[in-house]
Amino acid sequence: MSKILLCEPNISEGRDRGIVEQVADQVRGVPGVKLLDYSSDPDHNRSVFTYLGVPEAVLKATQRLAVKTFELIDMAAHHGTHPRQGALDVAPFIPVRNISAAEAVAIARRFGRFVGEMGVPVYYYEDAATRPERKSLPDIRKGEYEALAAKLAEPAWVPDEGPATFNRKSGATVTGARFPLVAFNINLRTTDLSIADRIARAVRYISGGYRYVRALGLPLDDKGMVQVSMNLINYAKTPIPRVLETVRSEAARYGVAIAGAELVGPVPLGALEEVARFYLQVHDFSLEQVIELALIE
Amino acid sequence: MSKILLCEPNISEGRDRGIVEQVADQVRGVPGVKLLDYSSDPDHNRSVFTYLGVPEAVLKATQRLAVKTFELIDMAAHHGTHPRQGALDVAPFIPVRNISAAEAVAIARRFGRFVGEMGVPVYYYEDAATRPERKSLPDIRKGEYEALAAKLAEPAWVPDEGPATFNRKSGATVTGARFPLVAFNINLRTTDLSIADRIARAVRYISGGYRYVRALGLPLDDKGMVQVSMNLINYAKTPIPRVLETVRSEAARYGVAIAGAELVGPVPLGALEEVARFYLQVHDFSLEQVIELALIE
Repeated sequence: MSKILLCEPNISEGRDRGIVEQVADQVRGVPGVKLLDYSSDPDHNRSVFTYLGVPEAVLKATQRLAVKTFELIDMAAHHGTHPRQGALDVAPFIPVRNISAAEAVAIARRFGRFVGEMGVPVYYYEDAATRPERKSLPDIRKGEYEALAAKLAEPAWVPDEGPATFNRKSGATVTGARFPLVAFNINLRTTDLSIADRIARAVRYISGGYRYVRALGLPLDDKGMVQVSMNLINYAKTPIPRVLETVRSEAARYGVAIAGAELVGPVPLGALEEVARFYLQVHDFSLEQVIELALIE
Repeated sequence: MSKILLCEPNISEGRDRGIVEQVADQVRGVPGVKLLDYSSDPDHNRSVFTYLGVPEAVLKATQRLAVKTFELIDMAAHHGTHPRQGALDVAPFIPVRNISAAEAVAIARRFGRFVGEMGVPVYYYEDAATRPERKSLPDIRKGEYEALAAKLAEPAWVPDEGPATFNRKSGATVTGARFPLVAFNINLRTTDLSIADRIARAVRYISGGYRYVRALGLPLDDKGMVQVSMNLINYAKTPIPRVLETVRSEAARYGVAIAGAELVGPVPLGALEEVARFYLQVHDFSLEQVIELALIE
């Protein structure tokens, strides 16, 4: 089966339908790429595109998307509530199948060079970051577009690609590679938010929990429950069943049961492989056994 | 996503590689069909082909396979240890995705008519059976090729398609539709075969267990364990987690733990959907969320 790479670029236009469609057409026009979804938020004035395919085709689609985005969007006139720094604000490449993190980083770097050569400053983030302080998107984007001209003059913010000079029309682009994220929420049969909070603290990285878990407690007032809302940012190294069973045992000490859970949005099949292995105890099970996958060329 | 149908025909030739390859080529030559696997057993003198694709293409591939099989195989000269009645002995159509049992039956019937028109008697079995005593393949095949001439003269064995006269060269063909089967084995931490036997009787249909489970106890001498070996013949109506949890609770009454389990051979993704739903308690989870499936045209 061939390699599958996903890309999820965010552009700074969420109001002008015509512009968004022209950008989407750039992706649609590339053989070997499937546009799964795109959506716009007028308040954020931002759109996100999700597409996948073989790596070279995904790179090509993202290059075409970049060219059209830089042509049609003028950041000097942009207003919106979502933090942003550039017309093509961020483009993460996400390995889905048969492709390593290193290969996704290599594609992100080729894309970064392409954007840099168009005269737009580029910062690499996440797995493609060139220094620790550029790993996180919020850190790179601090001050947003409005602070960019001054920031580019600082030695600490010399871009990874492209000129260290302010591009008024296009701003800067952040690109890189990251593992696919799994959004996993667990609902608890209690209205006591402090229990969800304590469990969130038990499982999340920043307070001593699992390395690849972000979590917080939330009230679900309409359901009369509370929720441990989580992002699993590396399902291979911190798998879903381990996190669920930890939440279950932490909840049990308060006499609270799990009412249900949600996997939100797209889920890579790889995340489900360990669910079958763990709960069915099928130690040798492999996704290669899944019939439907044979149809993916 | 389009409909996916699988076909797994068995032909009465497992020794002459040239014939098997010519038959395989008939499947390979059809656009929209993917030949997953084919294998031959010289003792059985029989080969099985597994391919899948959109229903019309799978029908076409199976028609081409039938024509070549009837051309190249002469049943009058066939010897082998596996029960068989015809050159194209059996051709089950198996719905894998977005296709109902009724649609698979309709394809099987079109295939049956095609074979009948070639002068080969056809019996429909499983979901395509026209009467209860033709539901099971062993029932239809009783007496094998050698008994066929006499059988066709009996009113009870008038074929569903084709002539009620003996076709010496090609025998008869059985075709129909059945749900995809999941082979699931559970290994127990004991050498006491009677425990595996009792658990097999608890879960299998014929002795009062689940409707869509076939099971038997087996020794695993090299592992120092015993196994409950099962075929789940409708994973939608008798799902894997329910069977596993019943085996677990039956084993617990003897103080025996589950050491591990095996999913053997191809597994339809639909069988794993309920594994995630049950164990993760993700009541609203759907396979539509699986990223990779978007790539199946």
